[in-house]
Amino acid sequence: MDLASKILAGDVRSVARLMSLIENGEAEGIRILKDLYPHTGRAHIIGITGPPGSGKSTLTDKLTEGYRTRGRTVGIVAVDPTSPFTGGAILADRIRMQRHYLDEGVFIRSMATRGHLGGLARATNDVVDVLDAAGKEIIVIETVGVGQAEVEVVRAAHTSVVTTVPGLGDGVQTIKAGIMEIGDIFVVNKADREGADRTVRDLEMALMMNPVRGPWEPPIYRTVATKGEGVPELLEAIEAHRKFLLREGSWGRKARERTEHTFMELLRERLASRALERAGGNGSLARLVERIARRETDPYTAVEEVLRKLGL
Amino acid sequence: MDLASKILAGDVRSVARLMSLIENGEAEGIRILKDLYPHTGRAHIIGITGPPGSGKSTLTDKLTEGYRTRGRTVGIVAVDPTSPFTGGAILADRIRMQRHYLDEGVFIRSMATRGHLGGLARATNDVVDVLDAAGKEIIVIETVGVGQAEVEVVRAAHTSVVTTVPGLGDGVQTIKAGIMEIGDIFVVNKADREGADRTVRDLEMALMMNPVRGPWEPPIYRTVATKGEGVPELLEAIEAHRKFLLREGSWGRKARERTEHTFMELLRERLASRALERAGGNGSLARLVERIARRETDPYTAVEEVLRKLGL
Repeated sequence: MDLASKILAGDVRSVARLMSLIENGEAEGIRILKDLYPHTGRAHIIGITGPPGSGKSTLTDKLTEGYRTRGRTVGIVAVDPTSPFTGGAILADRIRMQRHYLDEGVFIRSMATRGHLGGLARATNDVVDVLDAAGKEIIVIETVGVGQAEVEVVRAAHTSVVTTVPGLGDGVQTIKAGIMEIGDIFVVNKADREGADRTVRDLEMALMMNPVRGPWEPPIYRTVATKGEGVPELLEAIEAHRKFLLREGSWGRKARERTEHTFMELLRERLASRALERAGGNGSLARLVERIARRETDPYTAVEEVLRKLGL
Repeated sequence: MDLASKILAGDVRSVARLMSLIENGEAEGIRILKDLYPHTGRAHIIGITGPPGSGKSTLTDKLTEGYRTRGRTVGIVAVDPTSPFTGGAILADRIRMQRHYLDEGVFIRSMATRGHLGGLARATNDVVDVLDAAGKEIIVIETVGVGQAEVEVVRAAHTSVVTTVPGLGDGVQTIKAGIMEIGDIFVVNKADREGADRTVRDLEMALMMNPVRGPWEPPIYRTVATKGEGVPELLEAIEAHRKFLLREGSWGRKARERTEHTFMELLRERLASRALERAGGNGSLARLVERIARRETDPYTAVEEVLRKLGL
């Protein structure tokens, strides 16, 4: 049986193998992704995002338990802010996650935020597609919800859960631009801490001021993820959002947005590398940059030159 | 006198006018940018980055005062995490900044993180180039140092100042991937708060573990920006770093990295829009996305089709 068939059958080791091929930018990985693509589009993709220390991993862990109890299979993509400096925290996460290690119904993949050929958002999308093709019914993308890349990752989700915690200064300010607007469900985690009421009120106020409210009114939940408190209610809310999307016809629209984004990212990347090859082969980028650095030309003119050489 | 000449003469209203042209994606703006480009590359570009609430604006404000006292002109590019939800904080920043309003030696520009044709990093780079051409000797890019876009913005700087504050959980964890490694100077602001010693120690430890240390040893400063405490020392450190870069020959290398990045971003963007026009005109993107969404094709194959149609 070839790798694609094994993945469609849900074989864990084959899934891991393909993900490594993809992460290393191997042509073989892309060939298999193409074969798998017709089998994607079935999973419920859930984004969990929030500032560092807001308990995203623990929440993901407890939600996973909840879904497993209901017999659903779960894929987790942890987009880690890896750095030589925060390796400790990530290691702790991985250890915590090992409680699912022997459960074939759960697959966990960590994505480093650096060193991805073609960018984090695309690599994450590819990994989500693999998990989807492998039959995982729920896919959780867990990420620090702060930068553009993370916003893109969350945009790929059907349901975006935005977490915060009491005591992070202004609770709303910790939730960054573009994230507040796309949150479908808000969670004040560590809700047994002082200041939880204030944080909930801040969120309520902020949501009331949201100028782009649609028919879905984002609810706010309180959880204490370490004790599992509030997690069953959160899981119900995620399920309610899924039903809402299907009922309203928004499920297909969200999937289409994700598709368009994936396609455009890939197009940008491939065009640029192909164009540089064609426009002058090895070293042409370095020569162009050198000319711009010497102010013999400027970036805009240089780009126009490349386009002209390509007949575009 | 045309707009480019007025900008080279430092005319404030012309600078503002060009920035608006650029932000609106007007062809006229690009034409003028090209004219100005030979006059760029002189300013000392300083990035100030750190988590929300770490006092970046106040630090920028006080550093600006310091540079003005020394007779240097200053451009400030505030990359704001604008959102309908955080408008209040930004307004407060703008009001604070108005103390420089009547000083022609200071120019302040806020960049929204959304709605930029071609991405935030490029728009920020363009604005920096305009300020540089207009003769600003110091250009401060102030940004929440969290996402990929922000990392890119900071990479554009000669000197990166990374700020944190005591009491943000693990002080080091608040400084995100890719930022710790590129910080040239670290600042523990609000250093009169409890926990400052701990935060400094955490930073020291983290820096010691940095596997990619070069000849420059990043110092750690304590400041209380609201009172101006520690700011003169920080300014001296920034000057010392500038001298170090010039002495070591790294000044030109940093500028070249910035050039390469600007060029590549622009190339990716222009190629993609040109390619979509050529590959089928209006509506072709929508049709392709629809076919991918229906799983009649996959993103990789669709991109290959576009490349083939273009003869690339």
